[in-house]
Amino acid sequence: MRIAVLGTGMVGRAIAARTAELGHEVVVGTRDVAATQAGDWGEWAAGHSGVTLAGHAAATAEADLVVNATSGDGSLPALNAAGAENLAGKVLLDIANPLDFSKGFPPTLSVVNDDSLAERIQRAFPRTRVVKALNTLTADLMTHPRQLADGDHSVFVSGDDAEAKKVVVDLLTSFGHTDVIDLGDITTARGTEMLLPIWLRLYGRLGTPLFNVKVVR
Amino acid sequence: MRIAVLGTGMVGRAIAARTAELGHEVVVGTRDVAATQAGDWGEWAAGHSGVTLAGHAAATAEADLVVNATSGDGSLPALNAAGAENLAGKVLLDIANPLDFSKGFPPTLSVVNDDSLAERIQRAFPRTRVVKALNTLTADLMTHPRQLADGDHSVFVSGDDAEAKKVVVDLLTSFGHTDVIDLGDITTARGTEMLLPIWLRLYGRLGTPLFNVKVVR
Repeated sequence: MRIAVLGTGMVGRAIAARTAELGHEVVVGTRDVAATQAGDWGEWAAGHSGVTLAGHAAATAEADLVVNATSGDGSLPALNAAGAENLAGKVLLDIANPLDFSKGFPPTLSVVNDDSLAERIQRAFPRTRVVKALNTLTADLMTHPRQLADGDHSVFVSGDDAEAKKVVVDLLTSFGHTDVIDLGDITTARGTEMLLPIWLRLYGRLGTPLFNVKVVR
Repeated sequence: MRIAVLGTGMVGRAIAARTAELGHEVVVGTRDVAATQAGDWGEWAAGHSGVTLAGHAAATAEADLVVNATSGDGSLPALNAAGAENLAGKVLLDIANPLDFSKGFPPTLSVVNDDSLAERIQRAFPRTRVVKALNTLTADLMTHPRQLADGDHSVFVSGDDAEAKKVVVDLLTSFGHTDVIDLGDITTARGTEMLLPIWLRLYGRLGTPLFNVKVVR
């Protein structure tokens, strides 16, 4: 597939590297190509020659699958920059969490309880097929789950479009995930976004982000 | 120990039955003893002869450990009825979740994000040692965890008082729990209360409440 990964941070780079490794054609989208190149992008890109860099709109225009790997408050601006027309009809894998660190630690969620970031994105781009997934674990485990308990832990998908969820489930399976639970429609993303507070506390308690939940049943 | 279990619903009965079975002296507290007896209490109590029934205040007065097994919106009224003096200095195991079903399914949380029911209770009763625990799984698994994967799943404790948390951890261990994770102070209860939205969706998806999360690390 042609995959556009919006966001140049830890999550964006992990998804870009893994999908390129698996043979996909990957473009990373950024707000400002020159500013990204002026940072440590060049060093990272040197080790990932299959990945190219472009503006959000150019990256999205030719993609089959778009990945939202921006920060929570950067998501709608990045998707607006990508453009509703470029996003129309496409599967959007939304990994972002609406964390608000403005009042210090622990952060709160800027959307919560009777709404979610995923729903906001779906409402803002009604022609795009939004699937929430992978927002409940650290980047390195999103992309290489087998390193923990040989992959014996769970991830979730939420979305209104069954076919779009299948595309995402197949991608997650190709990463090595063995227990992908379909929670239901896009409103079920409230539940996975609301996992962040306990995730952050567990991170502090365990001293490593290399953990995940397994739904034992 | 002498244990007061406030609440006559599914959770209260499960905790009362299990603690009585383990040899504790158990009194269940209710708002209205006559009304409770007029319901199906008699039938239940006939099978649990070690458990007695009393008003919230009488149940709490002689207890070493108090368990809040009321509904979320019933918690502060029940604890006020139990009385601040009766609760002073005692360990309060808080199992309640602040679920609000008034707008239908899925319910929202009436306290969330930058506060929690556990913190509200701790603020309302500053001389009581509140420990949040067991609010993340179904009653039957709270009390008999070994029936699922031989107990290979996780529960959490949150609270400001280390000694009070030890009392609760010991109780949970006596129930059969093998992985009790101390998340930290009482504010960490936000994280476990915010697990409820995904718990409810998983319940719907799996078709049984007999599941739990395990923190794989």
